[in-house]
Amino acid sequence: MDIRTANREELLKLRDELTAQYEASCQKHLKLDMSRGKPGADQLDLSQGILTQLTTNEDAVFEGTDLRNYGGLDGIPACKALFAELLDVRPENILVGGNASLTMMYDNIMRLWVFGDCDGNAPWSQQGKIKFLCPVPGYDRHFAICEQLGMEMINIPMKDDGPDMDMVEKLVGEDASVKGIWCVPKYSNPTGAVYSDEVVRRFASIKHAAPDFKIMWDNAYCVHHLSDEKIEIPNIIKEAAKYGNEDIVFEFASTSKITFPGAGVACMAASEKNMKWAKNLLKVQAIGPDKLNQARHVKFFKNAAGVAAHMEKHKAILAPKFDMVLSMLEKNLGGTGAGSWLSPKGGYFISFDAYPGCAKRIYDLCKGAGVVMTDAGATYPYGKDPDDKNLRIAPSYPPVEELKAAMEVFCVCALLAAVEKKLAE
Amino acid sequence: MDIRTANREELLKLRDELTAQYEASCQKHLKLDMSRGKPGADQLDLSQGILTQLTTNEDAVFEGTDLRNYGGLDGIPACKALFAELLDVRPENILVGGNASLTMMYDNIMRLWVFGDCDGNAPWSQQGKIKFLCPVPGYDRHFAICEQLGMEMINIPMKDDGPDMDMVEKLVGEDASVKGIWCVPKYSNPTGAVYSDEVVRRFASIKHAAPDFKIMWDNAYCVHHLSDEKIEIPNIIKEAAKYGNEDIVFEFASTSKITFPGAGVACMAASEKNMKWAKNLLKVQAIGPDKLNQARHVKFFKNAAGVAAHMEKHKAILAPKFDMVLSMLEKNLGGTGAGSWLSPKGGYFISFDAYPGCAKRIYDLCKGAGVVMTDAGATYPYGKDPDDKNLRIAPSYPPVEELKAAMEVFCVCALLAAVEKKLAE
Repeated sequence: MDIRTANREELLKLRDELTAQYEASCQKHLKLDMSRGKPGADQLDLSQGILTQLTTNEDAVFEGTDLRNYGGLDGIPACKALFAELLDVRPENILVGGNASLTMMYDNIMRLWVFGDCDGNAPWSQQGKIKFLCPVPGYDRHFAICEQLGMEMINIPMKDDGPDMDMVEKLVGEDASVKGIWCVPKYSNPTGAVYSDEVVRRFASIKHAAPDFKIMWDNAYCVHHLSDEKIEIPNIIKEAAKYGNEDIVFEFASTSKITFPGAGVACMAASEKNMKWAKNLLKVQAIGPDKLNQARHVKFFKNAAGVAAHMEKHKAILAPKFDMVLSMLEKNLGGTGAGSWLSPKGGYFISFDAYPGCAKRIYDLCKGAGVVMTDAGATYPYGKDPDDKNLRIAPSYPPVEELKAAMEVFCVCALLAAVEKKLAE
Repeated sequence: MDIRTANREELLKLRDELTAQYEASCQKHLKLDMSRGKPGADQLDLSQGILTQLTTNEDAVFEGTDLRNYGGLDGIPACKALFAELLDVRPENILVGGNASLTMMYDNIMRLWVFGDCDGNAPWSQQGKIKFLCPVPGYDRHFAICEQLGMEMINIPMKDDGPDMDMVEKLVGEDASVKGIWCVPKYSNPTGAVYSDEVVRRFASIKHAAPDFKIMWDNAYCVHHLSDEKIEIPNIIKEAAKYGNEDIVFEFASTSKITFPGAGVACMAASEKNMKWAKNLLKVQAIGPDKLNQARHVKFFKNAAGVAAHMEKHKAILAPKFDMVLSMLEKNLGGTGAGSWLSPKGGYFISFDAYPGCAKRIYDLCKGAGVVMTDAGATYPYGKDPDDKNLRIAPSYPPVEELKAAMEVFCVCALLAAVEKKLAE
């Protein structure tokens, strides 16, 4: 039944059926979680070898350096080389950090906020109200950083090939208080969109009214393919250099969803000038990252090909979960008008656009039946989804059976909320 | 010969002898380093067991939590409990971080700088020129944080039992722009001084004109004894609570000089109100620290007694090095008037006060002979030792033979510089 064309009687009947199904679900006292993009335990098991790469005192002396001791502000050379190969930049453009790219992003924003950029522009904190562009739906933790600092966030609609670049170019080109933009260019969180070559090129060549405009290029899912297509996008750092824009880009990546989310290795890539700037400030904040863990990773993977082979194993676990979620959405909600979604070719999420005005209701219904979703609104700045329609489905963490049970509940809730809404209109 | 009472002829003769000795040293083309408080390789070898605490997927699930995955903003409960036992506070007063207490201190100062304290006082960055008290000689990396943020640093003389508390109480009590003080209360860097019970009590009960005054209590050497005395000092957090001052103290510690400087675990201890404040801000900066490494440490040590037993092994390596340095200083410089020093009962340094105006010259002479010392002036804010006399000797890193060779050079340089200075007066 398509609820957009159904008559009132049909809708009432459907509502009663769905309500009965929902109440039956509640009786099962489920405890299921599709809220965060956490790898499942079986995925983590793939990296057991990391744990035994360094087991003796002799192991800890690696390429001539005693990794147990102080030093090495920007990471061990072998780990810089590994990330350089993965991101197609030179090792001197890589700063390897601790276990979280989020922290590296936060700290980098804080440098710009407190000290100003590599060209000596005033700290953002001293420039009055500044603005940050936020493609939506997007990643809640990006938005939280801007919110904590009191920046004004501006929603930029995400399309299938990236953010609305006409809007981005106009805002960045005309408004000097627009200081930056968050980008997840590949298998975007949450829509799975991949920036087209054209979009990347427009970012690389962008005219910026603010001399200290910065692109936060969170390449979190650079090797996280779900299909055999293995999409590649242009290298933003190299592209930007073609237009003299090399200093506006900070790129981030990590092994959080390659090895261990809690004990991986993260990196920042940027121009030589930005590297010099960042390290000069970082040397007061840090003596050096955990070099032992970097060596564990390097020895485990050896090179980018090793990482790629490892990601095939993740794909074998993840792809069936995504397929299952997508087929259940299609089976239960296809043609009903209760929502729309995309089939991502990589990444960690399926973005679900509910019948407008229904996202919060779906979240609450799911919660009532023991299924935890990411908060409705979380994919928008300030947690405010103007249409109250987007929900982020994270299929990775639950085992397949639990995921199936959770999705059954979700589909009932999504359809029920849409019918209720339609009846109330 | 006491150069303070020697006549010119005697001094000239001594200078020629020392110059000949120095030139002979230079011919040896030494390459020795007494510059940083790095543990020696034999000390690091003591912690080999850390590397094999977690080797299987099953090991990584610890006390019911999969430590490989995301989460756990303030550290794993077992590691909080270990630090709580070491610092004699409750686990809820502990925040366990990454591998560096320096970074935890920096980030905490940054919170106060950008967001203001737990009572809602304005951010330090918005209060005009603010001042920080710096006991001298002290730790260069503390001072570097204040310098980076443009705070005004005020030198406070260190005595044998802690900072000059009359001066501290007057400045803190009367000047609301004095926002904080750096303290290394036990086996202080570099003098080795231990704060007396009276000094700790005066800090705990201090009247502060600034409502947002904070004590940065860097308890870096809390278990780092060099003698059997094993000095203990009063618990600043508990003491401060007696005077309603519990929110002015942030205490820091780490295993950097217990296990691995590059891959240890650090913590911050503070009042419940400060913990809530810090975590509320931290949750935007971080998802959680490396929990696997925390578990490695907990499993290796089990408890504070395990740490204490381990520190005995460090002492067995370090104490002979300190004894050697002290006996060489006594043998070569005792009674000469070329310098004075203290015999620390713990910590990592011997603080040497040269003949006034000679520290830079000694540093340069040592460097010329291939012996690297910590920069002269480094133990003072802005690198400016007003008397140009303090040098920090770090005996831990070189093997004993190298340390002996380095100290022979150092003593010649210290005496030569003093004689030169005396002759020029």
